[in-house]
Amino acid sequence: MTKLLIIGAGKSASALVRYLDANAQENNLQILIADKDMQAAKKSAAYPSTKAIELDIFNTEERQKQIKAADMVVSMLPARFHIEVAKDCVNFGKNMATASYVSDEMAALDEEVKTKGLTFMNEIGVDPGVDHMSAMKVIDEIRDKGGKLILFESFTGGLVAPESDDNLWNYKFTWNPRNVVVAGQGGPAKFIQEGKYKYIPYQRLFRRTEFLEVPGYGQFEGLANRNSLAYREVYGIEDIPTLYRGTLRRVGFSKAWNVFVQLGVTDDTYTLEDSEHMTYREFFNTFLPYSPTDSVELKLRHSLKIDQDDLLWEKLLDLDIFNNKKTIGIKNATPAQALQSILEEKWMLKPDDKDMIVMYHKFGYELDGQKKQIDSTMVSIGEDQTFTAMSRTVGLPLGIAIIKMIKKEITRPGVLRPIYPEIYKPILKELEEHGIEFTETQTEYLGYNPHNLK
Amino acid sequence: MTKLLIIGAGKSASALVRYLDANAQENNLQILIADKDMQAAKKSAAYPSTKAIELDIFNTEERQKQIKAADMVVSMLPARFHIEVAKDCVNFGKNMATASYVSDEMAALDEEVKTKGLTFMNEIGVDPGVDHMSAMKVIDEIRDKGGKLILFESFTGGLVAPESDDNLWNYKFTWNPRNVVVAGQGGPAKFIQEGKYKYIPYQRLFRRTEFLEVPGYGQFEGLANRNSLAYREVYGIEDIPTLYRGTLRRVGFSKAWNVFVQLGVTDDTYTLEDSEHMTYREFFNTFLPYSPTDSVELKLRHSLKIDQDDLLWEKLLDLDIFNNKKTIGIKNATPAQALQSILEEKWMLKPDDKDMIVMYHKFGYELDGQKKQIDSTMVSIGEDQTFTAMSRTVGLPLGIAIIKMIKKEITRPGVLRPIYPEIYKPILKELEEHGIEFTETQTEYLGYNPHNLK
Repeated sequence: MTKLLIIGAGKSASALVRYLDANAQENNLQILIADKDMQAAKKSAAYPSTKAIELDIFNTEERQKQIKAADMVVSMLPARFHIEVAKDCVNFGKNMATASYVSDEMAALDEEVKTKGLTFMNEIGVDPGVDHMSAMKVIDEIRDKGGKLILFESFTGGLVAPESDDNLWNYKFTWNPRNVVVAGQGGPAKFIQEGKYKYIPYQRLFRRTEFLEVPGYGQFEGLANRNSLAYREVYGIEDIPTLYRGTLRRVGFSKAWNVFVQLGVTDDTYTLEDSEHMTYREFFNTFLPYSPTDSVELKLRHSLKIDQDDLLWEKLLDLDIFNNKKTIGIKNATPAQALQSILEEKWMLKPDDKDMIVMYHKFGYELDGQKKQIDSTMVSIGEDQTFTAMSRTVGLPLGIAIIKMIKKEITRPGVLRPIYPEIYKPILKELEEHGIEFTETQTEYLGYNPHNLK
Repeated sequence: MTKLLIIGAGKSASALVRYLDANAQENNLQILIADKDMQAAKKSAAYPSTKAIELDIFNTEERQKQIKAADMVVSMLPARFHIEVAKDCVNFGKNMATASYVSDEMAALDEEVKTKGLTFMNEIGVDPGVDHMSAMKVIDEIRDKGGKLILFESFTGGLVAPESDDNLWNYKFTWNPRNVVVAGQGGPAKFIQEGKYKYIPYQRLFRRTEFLEVPGYGQFEGLANRNSLAYREVYGIEDIPTLYRGTLRRVGFSKAWNVFVQLGVTDDTYTLEDSEHMTYREFFNTFLPYSPTDSVELKLRHSLKIDQDDLLWEKLLDLDIFNNKKTIGIKNATPAQALQSILEEKWMLKPDDKDMIVMYHKFGYELDGQKKQIDSTMVSIGEDQTFTAMSRTVGLPLGIAIIKMIKKEITRPGVLRPIYPEIYKPILKELEEHGIEFTETQTEYLGYNPHNLK
C-alpha cells in the first residue's frame, strides 16, 4: 500500500482527489488529506480511498511525523508554505509534487534532491503546467525537424463559459478575486519583439492589448503578463527574437478596466479614511476632483474622456458604481479591497454557472529557408462549480503526474518542471482522454506585424 | 567659547556657514565642519571662524568623541543618518539642529530630550521650515482674532529664476535631479477638499494641476504633494475641511512630464536590458509597441494622442529624445536613471544661471460670520550658484535658529518643529532682513470652487 499525503484541502483540490481516487485501487493507494480545518479535510476526503486528517503545518513535530509516515507528498498549500514541506521531504527522502511556480528557495534544493534520487515535480497545474507541456511539445517537434524557433507567444485566460456569460464585461470571478483586482501591479510587463526589448508600465498595460480569435469561441484580447523574458531559460529558447506571454480576456474588458487603473481604485498599498461607511458613489468620488455642483458621473466622464456613446460607460453602470446607498462595509479597506467588494456583487458565479480555461500558443519558425507558423489552442469548460475548468486543468495534470511518479514511470530526479518529453508526452496523452486537448493548426507566418494581422 | 559641530559639508551648507561665520565673533563661536571627505570639509571651512575636521560618522568612537567635545551639533547628513547623531546628542546632553523631517525614530526621542532639558530643532530649512513658520504665523493670527480656519493650501517650488529661464520646459535642476525624476511615486497624493477625502494616483498626478498667479512672477501650476493630511496634526488644524499641499512648476510642465509618467520612463524599480549602449531613441522605443515600419515619433504621438500642433511635442524635441546617436552610457540603468541622464544634458544650470524658490499659501477663514481669505507669497532668487536660493532659504533659517539656541533665546525643550510663536516670530523677522519675506494680501474668499477661480 502506497500512502499519499495531500497537505491542504481546498476547493481547487476537487478534481485532483477525484482522479486519484479513481486510480487508487489499481495502484493500491491510500490518500490522506490533511488540513488544519478538519471540516474542509473531511469534505475533500469523501471518496473510498481517502481519509481526512487534522494537521497544522506550523506544528513542526506533527508535520514531520505525517511526512515521515507517507510515501509521497503533495502540497496544495499557498505557494509560500511549500518550502517547509519540501525541506522535510528532502530530509525524509520522499517524492513531492506541487502545482506552483518553482521559488528560488525551492530551486536551491535541486542538488540535494538529485543526490537523494528524489523527484520534486512543480508547475504541473494549468498555468504554469499545461502551458509548459503543450508549448514544449511543439517547440521540441520544431527542433527535431531541424527548424529554428523565431516567435513564441502564449496566452491563457480563466474566464466564464459562453453559456454563463451574461454581463457586459463578459467576465466573472472564476478564481481568487484579489489576484484579478491587483493583476499587473508590482513591476512592468517585460517581453521581446523582433529582437527589441519592450516594457509596459501598469498605467499602459490595459491599453496595449491585441486581439486573438479562438476557433469556435470568437474574439479574445491578450494583455502582456509580468516577465516573459524569464521563459527563455526555462524553455531553452535564449536567442528567440519574439517572446510574449499574456492573459486573455473577452474583447473590451481591458479598456473598461483601465478606468479603474487610471482612477487609482486598484491600489492595494494604503487604506482609505472611513471606508466602512463610504457609499460606492463616495468611493469613486474620492478619486475625482472636488466640485460643489457637478455630478460624479460627469466628473468621471470628463476626467477620463469617456464619450457619451462609449459602451464602456454601460459596463461601469452595470457595476452600480454610482449607487449612493450601498456602502463598502469594510473597515480600513484599501481601494483594491473596496473595488473587489463592489465587483463581487456582480461577478460571482451563479449556482449553475460554468467557468472556462482558454489557452492560445503561436509558434513561428524557420525550416528549409521558409517561415512557418503553428497555432495551438485549447478550451476547457467546467463541469459544474465543484469540478470547474480551473480545478480540472490544475488537478488532472497534477494527478496524472503523481500516479506516474508512484508507478515509477516518472523517475527523473531533481526539482523539476514538466518540460521533458518523457514527462509531458504521456501526461498530455492522458489529458486528451479527459477532454483537455490542443488543436494545432499550420498557418501562414504572420510575425509580429500589426498590418499583416488577420 | 562655544564649539559648534556641523556634521556633513555639502554644497547646501554654503549659506549656513557664511551666516554662522558672520555671527561668530559676536557670539564667541568656533565652527567645526566635519566630513569624511577632508577636501569637502576644507572647502566649506573657508571662513575665519571655521575649522575643517575629518570624520567618518560610521566610526562610532570618533563620532562620539567629536560630539562629546562640542557644545551644540548640526547634522547636515542625508536624513537617514541623523538618528545616530541624535542618540549621541541625547547621551552627551547636547542641543541639536537639522533641516530634515522629523522621522519616527527622531520623534521617539522626544520624551528623553525633554527630560534632559535639551532642544532638538528640526524642519527648519525651507520646505519643511520656512513653510511651517510663515503658515503658522497667519494661522495663529487668525485664531488670535477669533477666526476659524476653513481652508489651507500651500505650494512650494524650487525653480529656475526668470532671468535664467531659457528652455521650453521653464525648468532646470536646482536640487537633486533624482528626486525630481521620481517625484510623486510611492503612494497616492492624499488631501481633503470641503470635507471630502481625495486621493490622486501617480498616473493622474500630473494631470490634476491647478493654476496660481504670483504677483510680479506670472503663472505657475500646482500639483498635489504626498500626504497633506499629516499636516492636520502638525499645525493643530484637525477639523479643517480643505487642506492641500502642493509643488509649483511653470505652466505646462506637468502635462509634458505626464508623457514620461505614462510611458513608464520614470520607473526606478527595475533595470533595463543593455542600457549602456541604448540610444535615446531606442530607450523611448522600448516603451512603445513594435513596428517594422512606423517611426518612434509617430508611435509616441499615437500612443499618447499628442496632436500635431501640441507645444508639448516641442518640449520633447527640445530634450533630443529621438536622437539615435547619443547613448545612455550607464550600465544596468533603471528607466529613471536613463531619463535623468537625458534630462541632465539640458536641464543643468549654466554657470551664470540663478535659481528661485517660490512659496504660495492660501488661508480661508470665517470671522464674525464672514468668509475671508489671506494669500501669502514669497519669492527668493539665488545670488549665484554657491549662494543659491535653495541654499539661502535652507541655511538662513537654520543658522538663525542655531544662533538663537546658542544665545538661549530659543530654549523650549523637546524634538521640535518651528511652529511655536516664540520660535517662528523672531526667525521670520530676521529672515526679512535677508530678503526672505512674505507678502500677505487680504482677498475675496474663493474656497475650492473652480468656477469662482480668477
